[in-house]
Amino acid sequence: MPERAEDGPFEGPDDLDATRGQVRAVLDRFYAAFESADLDAMRSVWLDDDRATCVHPGALPVRGAAAVGRSWALVMANTPYLQFILTDVDIAVAGDTASVSCTENVLTAEEGGPLDSFGAGQTVSTNVLVRTERGWRLWVRHSSPVAPVQVLSAGDDQDE
Amino acid sequence: MPERAEDGPFEGPDDLDATRGQVRAVLDRFYAAFESADLDAMRSVWLDDDRATCVHPGALPVRGAAAVGRSWALVMANTPYLQFILTDVDIAVAGDTASVSCTENVLTAEEGGPLDSFGAGQTVSTNVLVRTERGWRLWVRHSSPVAPVQVLSAGDDQDE
Repeated sequence: MPERAEDGPFEGPDDLDATRGQVRAVLDRFYAAFESADLDAMRSVWLDDDRATCVHPGALPVRGAAAVGRSWALVMANTPYLQFILTDVDIAVAGDTASVSCTENVLTAEEGGPLDSFGAGQTVSTNVLVRTERGWRLWVRHSSPVAPVQVLSAGDDQDE
Repeated sequence: MPERAEDGPFEGPDDLDATRGQVRAVLDRFYAAFESADLDAMRSVWLDDDRATCVHPGALPVRGAAAVGRSWALVMANTPYLQFILTDVDIAVAGDTASVSCTENVLTAEEGGPLDSFGAGQTVSTNVLVRTERGWRLWVRHSSPVAPVQVLSAGDDQDE
């Protein structure tokens, strides 16, 4: 049997609540930039580094700040209207790195479509941020569609 | 225009090649445990902490080492044969954290099916590892299917 002891120095910072607030504020800027299709604001959220990595839903990884920025320009050009409602947001902090996982409930509308016609979908995303001299930046993002039927249950009891 | 200067102290370790080797070794143990359906080996790869987070393809996040272990037990119980061929592996290191993104080319076979009948699929995964006193451990994993048609191109030139 392997040892199942504590994993040692992998601790969060002393000011965990403040850190979580800072991380959440950067995430909020990310979604605001996405919803308003503000490419400059979107770029400013990301780490300006060749380590920046983004996996858009159904896509292969895009790597490096320049390529990630171009990918967002493409996404924004093809998304007339978009609104996010986040649920199940979890922020885990480890030193100068934080991982945020959440469910993104997405409301979309086609340009020129009837005003009462909306599409809705659900994606799940993992967002890893790092603390830099200029504040927290988005380092890695992976977003994927949620399948209509959940094939996995992590031991949660079902009501019926 | 926002400043686009260097992001400061977000640096990799001095021994970057050695670190990448250690991280890759843990990933190799992860895939070996998955392929051989060795649940103890799988659990030993993960951070033994409530921050462990795993997004299986098409699923919602599973959080905490205990729930993540149970989810792997379920996956393994429903996967008779599985082989991974990794391509496009990229390891980015930031201090005591590393992010590995790759394409997983998966070969599967149904139990009791004809010997020459295989299924093949492609998933893309992001794996975030942290350095602990007991070595690198898998902290966050997010895996998702690759859509048959790529709707995003990050500025790569196409041949035709």
